[in-house]
Amino acid sequence: MNEFSVIERFFKSIASNHTDLVQQSIGDDAAVLAIPEQKDLLISTDTLVENVHFLKDWPAEVIAYKALMTNISDIAAMAGTPCSVVVALTLPEIDQQWLAGFSKGLNKALQQYQIDLVGGDITRGPLTITITIHGIVPKAQAVLRSGAKVGDAIYLTGSLGSTGFAVSQLASKSYNDSIFNKLFFPKPCVEYAEILQKFATSAIDISDGLSSDLAHVLKASQVGAEIEAALIPVSPLLEAYLDKSQAIEQALHSGDEYELCFTVSQANKAGLEQAIGSLKLPYYHIGQIQQDKGLRVRTLDGVVQPLSASGFKHF
Amino acid sequence: MNEFSVIERFFKSIASNHTDLVQQSIGDDAAVLAIPEQKDLLISTDTLVENVHFLKDWPAEVIAYKALMTNISDIAAMAGTPCSVVVALTLPEIDQQWLAGFSKGLNKALQQYQIDLVGGDITRGPLTITITIHGIVPKAQAVLRSGAKVGDAIYLTGSLGSTGFAVSQLASKSYNDSIFNKLFFPKPCVEYAEILQKFATSAIDISDGLSSDLAHVLKASQVGAEIEAALIPVSPLLEAYLDKSQAIEQALHSGDEYELCFTVSQANKAGLEQAIGSLKLPYYHIGQIQQDKGLRVRTLDGVVQPLSASGFKHF
Repeated sequence: MNEFSVIERFFKSIASNHTDLVQQSIGDDAAVLAIPEQKDLLISTDTLVENVHFLKDWPAEVIAYKALMTNISDIAAMAGTPCSVVVALTLPEIDQQWLAGFSKGLNKALQQYQIDLVGGDITRGPLTITITIHGIVPKAQAVLRSGAKVGDAIYLTGSLGSTGFAVSQLASKSYNDSIFNKLFFPKPCVEYAEILQKFATSAIDISDGLSSDLAHVLKASQVGAEIEAALIPVSPLLEAYLDKSQAIEQALHSGDEYELCFTVSQANKAGLEQAIGSLKLPYYHIGQIQQDKGLRVRTLDGVVQPLSASGFKHF
Repeated sequence: MNEFSVIERFFKSIASNHTDLVQQSIGDDAAVLAIPEQKDLLISTDTLVENVHFLKDWPAEVIAYKALMTNISDIAAMAGTPCSVVVALTLPEIDQQWLAGFSKGLNKALQQYQIDLVGGDITRGPLTITITIHGIVPKAQAVLRSGAKVGDAIYLTGSLGSTGFAVSQLASKSYNDSIFNKLFFPKPCVEYAEILQKFATSAIDISDGLSSDLAHVLKASQVGAEIEAALIPVSPLLEAYLDKSQAIEQALHSGDEYELCFTVSQANKAGLEQAIGSLKLPYYHIGQIQQDKGLRVRTLDGVVQPLSASGFKHF
C-alpha cells in the first residue's frame, strides 16, 4: 500500500460533506472552502506525539478521537463552531489494523460534531498526528484571552481533576476503568459558543491545567485574579482516591480537561447565568478578576496565597 | 526554555501582519482571519520528516524555507494566492541555534511572499515539521486536477530534472554546489495564478515527479495524455553530468521541482500564450490530453510508449 491507496481506503470514505462550505476536498493540491459572509475563520493546529500525548498501547480509535476533540476544544474556547479539519499523519509503517481503528475514531468524532475532513498528508516517520482545525464565528465575535477586566467573574464549565489523576494511574489500572473516561473521550464545550459570544470577556480551554491556563488569560489581559478553593468543582471520580484537599489540588493543576474557563462582567453575570441555565448547561463561579497581577487562591482555611502554574509542561 | 518562551523568542516577532486578513494571531487558542467576500479559502497541509524530506545536517534555515515553499506551491497549483500559515514543530530538544536558523528561514519565506504566520504548536518528539497553509482565490475559480479535457494542450512552467539529480548527489558534493539550488530553494509558481484562473482547465505542482503528478491529473479527469520527450524542458544544470536521453529521463521523474503542469483548451491556447508572454513568464508546451486512458511519451526516436510513474514514493 502506498500513500494514495491508504487515503483511498481509510480516509476518502469519511470525507463526506457535513457542511455546505466544502467546494473541494481530499484529492487535490488544496481543499477549497466557501466561508460565509459575516463570519470570521478560526484556525488552530495541534500535534500529538507518541509517548508524550498518548501511549503506544492506546487503541488507535481512542487516539484519533481524542486528537480531534482536543482540536475542537480550541475552537470552542474562541466561541466558534468547528467546520473542517486537515489531518497530517506520520506513520512508521502501514499497519492496516491501526489505520482502520484510527479512521473509525476519526469518523466517529467528525460525525458527532458535523465536521468535514477536507485534506491531509501521510508521511513515513515516527508516529505523530497533526490536526489543523477550522471553525467559524460571527464577524468580530471571537472571544480572546485578552479581554478579562477587573471585577469580572470567573467561571468554569465543568469539574476538574480526573484526567490529571488518570494519567498517574495509566500503568496500574485497566483502560476500561471509569477514571480514564474523560482522558480518552474528552468533551469539548461547543454548546457554549453563542453564550460566550454574547457574554464572555475572555475564554480559554483547560489543556495545561487551570493554574496554567488561567494565568495565560491574566497575562494576556494584564490583570490578576483570586479563585476560591471551596468553589472549584472537583470531579466526583476522585472521591474514591483522594481526600478533599488533595482533590482540589489535583483539580487546580490537572491538564487535558477541555472544560472552558471564561470571564463575564458583573453587569452581565445574571444574564449569563439565566442563558446558560435555559440551555441546561453546567457552570461554576470560581472567583474574580482583580487589579493586582498574579493568580491567587483562597484555601479552604481562608488563607489567600499565590497559585503557581504547575500544569503540563511540553519541555 | 519552555514552549511559551520559545514562541515568544523565535516566532512572535515574525508574526507581523503582511495582509489585512488577520484579526488575531499567535497567542490565543485559535487565529482569527477575515476572509474577503467573493473569495474562496484554500487549505493544504504538508509534513516534512527528518531523513525522509530533509537531512539532519541541512541548515535549519534551509529546512524552514523549503518547507514553506513546498506549501506555497500547493496553493499556486490551485491558482490561489497564499495568505497565512500555522506551523506545528515537533522538536527532540530546545536547540536555540537551530531554532534561530529555522525562524530566520521561515521569516525570509514569509516576507518574500507576504504571508502571515498566525499560529502553531511546539511539541517534544522526533523532528517533524507540519505546515498548514491557507490561500485565497476568487470564488469558484480554483483550478482543480479534475478539469482536463480531451484535446487540451499540456504545459509546464519551467525546466525539470535538477532536483532529482541533486538528491543523488547529496552525499558526494558540497551543499554550495549550484546543483542543489532548486532542491534547497524551490520557487513556487505563484505568479501564474490569474492566468491559470482565466485559462487553465486543470493544474498540479510537480512534487512527486511529472510522470506521477500528470498521472494524478489524468486519473482525476478520466482522460489520457501523450507528451513528447523532445519538448520536455530539461534543467541546463544537468548538461555537465548527463547525456540528453538520460537528462530527459531524469526530468520525467524528478520530484521536489514545484513547477506547475497545467492544461488549456485548444481554443484558449493562443490567449494563454499571449497572457503569459506579456508577464514575461516561461512556459513549455509538452503534449496533449487524449481520450485513451494512461500516460504515454513519444521518445526522441519517435516511438510512443507508456510512461509509468516512478517519482517519489512515500512508502
